[in-house]
Amino acid sequence: MKRVAEIYPSDRVTLREVGLRDGLQLVQDFPSTEAKIEWLRRETEAGVRHFELGSFLPVSRMPQFADLGDLIETTERLGLHSAALALNERGVENAVASVVAEIGCVVSATEEHSQANMRRSRADAIALVGRAAALAKATPRRPLVNAGLSMAFGCSIAGEVDPDEVLRLIDACIEAGADVVGVADTVGFTGPKQVGGLTARATKLCGETPLVVHLHDTRGMGVANAAAALDNGCRVLDGSLGGLGGCPFAPGASGNVVYEDLVFLAETMGFRTGVDLDALKAARAVAEGAMPGESFHGALAKAGPPLTEWRL
Amino acid sequence: MKRVAEIYPSDRVTLREVGLRDGLQLVQDFPSTEAKIEWLRRETEAGVRHFELGSFLPVSRMPQFADLGDLIETTERLGLHSAALALNERGVENAVASVVAEIGCVVSATEEHSQANMRRSRADAIALVGRAAALAKATPRRPLVNAGLSMAFGCSIAGEVDPDEVLRLIDACIEAGADVVGVADTVGFTGPKQVGGLTARATKLCGETPLVVHLHDTRGMGVANAAAALDNGCRVLDGSLGGLGGCPFAPGASGNVVYEDLVFLAETMGFRTGVDLDALKAARAVAEGAMPGESFHGALAKAGPPLTEWRL
Repeated sequence: MKRVAEIYPSDRVTLREVGLRDGLQLVQDFPSTEAKIEWLRRETEAGVRHFELGSFLPVSRMPQFADLGDLIETTERLGLHSAALALNERGVENAVASVVAEIGCVVSATEEHSQANMRRSRADAIALVGRAAALAKATPRRPLVNAGLSMAFGCSIAGEVDPDEVLRLIDACIEAGADVVGVADTVGFTGPKQVGGLTARATKLCGETPLVVHLHDTRGMGVANAAAALDNGCRVLDGSLGGLGGCPFAPGASGNVVYEDLVFLAETMGFRTGVDLDALKAARAVAEGAMPGESFHGALAKAGPPLTEWRL
Repeated sequence: MKRVAEIYPSDRVTLREVGLRDGLQLVQDFPSTEAKIEWLRRETEAGVRHFELGSFLPVSRMPQFADLGDLIETTERLGLHSAALALNERGVENAVASVVAEIGCVVSATEEHSQANMRRSRADAIALVGRAAALAKATPRRPLVNAGLSMAFGCSIAGEVDPDEVLRLIDACIEAGADVVGVADTVGFTGPKQVGGLTARATKLCGETPLVVHLHDTRGMGVANAAAALDNGCRVLDGSLGGLGGCPFAPGASGNVVYEDLVFLAETMGFRTGVDLDALKAARAVAEGAMPGESFHGALAKAGPPLTEWRL
């Protein structure tokens, strides 16, 4: 069993590819298992190592994640890091029974969103983090438990979110047993100043617990917000290939921050990601072929890496 | 005659709209004069005040700028700030003879690019800045002279560009009489760390001379680079509505940083731009209607401003 500091080393930047989960959440036509595995394989060739693969939810509700078990097994067999969401007690039990290396629980940053979206209180959501941590620690594999705070930078229902409240919730999640915590700008409300400020405080609070910053590009701030997160101590960012994954609250809007652009950003900032941009472009072409109805965003894939070698 | 500190006050952020110049530079089908004026008028309603309108070049070479004189007159009549490029001696003379309020000269940051693109040395380009300044100061209107350094963050021919060299050129342009100087990431090679570093040094060198940072989103870094520029003392940024204006060196690539997204960025950072995002979205729709063959980029126009009022 790998320790958390081996999976998310604090001395380098880890870019998690969440396209197979967040990117497929809203789509009608999703790739076959074979196409998903080819997508994984091509991204692995490009140097991507961390994948969020789906949600443990009833197949009747989310048929795009019916093959989650297969994907997890393939990912682990390839020596990569697999993560998947578990949004309720049943999901947590199924996750613990699988070979997934990281179980993602979600806690809304506001009580209003928690009740409206998950029909439970934030306290109940944190209790589920505790339950997941207890179950995970009782297995020989001991998967990591990741507690992600959605709406941490602004809420589609409550509006403004108090950073003090977010920090309190991060603390509560760590107390409950989370190995990793996250803050998400779920609806793309925020800017780099806010992201930098909260990240600086959160990384200090987290200490050795890795902090994942999950950003959406809904209003064009994705890469700027990622730069601010990196500038303020964050070392784990989420992105999705081609920015797949829209916003349920803004039809047609951009989705997750674009993975390719994140790689380029991190490299220009002096962080070595281990990802080859040309190979990543090729992987993107495969994913685009498998999802012809979806818009793939992002500038780097159109322009290619720059001429100046020193920047990469 | 307005002083430079009134046109570009150092205590607020000015966002210049360069779509009518940089955005039309590469297009085959360009809007009619009436459509351009409607575009201007709608953006003015949204609060935009600074416009770059075209280049003083032979109509046979650049028919899209044939109506530049009309646009300048309209812009000035509306009480707005008009700017236009003058890339050679004849252009400078025509600019001085017009009612334009700001004459833009361009100096390549590298000798290689200067020779290949402009067929002249950088010294000759700086001499033209001096000539423009002398002519401008001899008129009663005294238009501003803006010396913009293209390829200041990386060159499509020479590759890496030494920031010390850029600073030396900025100094030479101010010595030659420039009222405003600029640094451009013409081909979108750079990241926020580089932009922040150069901006901090350049604003210090410039003192009271305004520094314009002109960014392209070719590799997705446009908004992040703009945030870094603002963080490091820049108070004048260029952008184009919908990110119009591609890159001659990367067909199909994104162009200028998206004006709407810049407005949102500045507002989240606490700078009041005076621009109303909903009205700007409406202006963008007008421009899109006038240029049906062009791709309009940018996330904010799809999603709209966020729910959280406090961020704007």
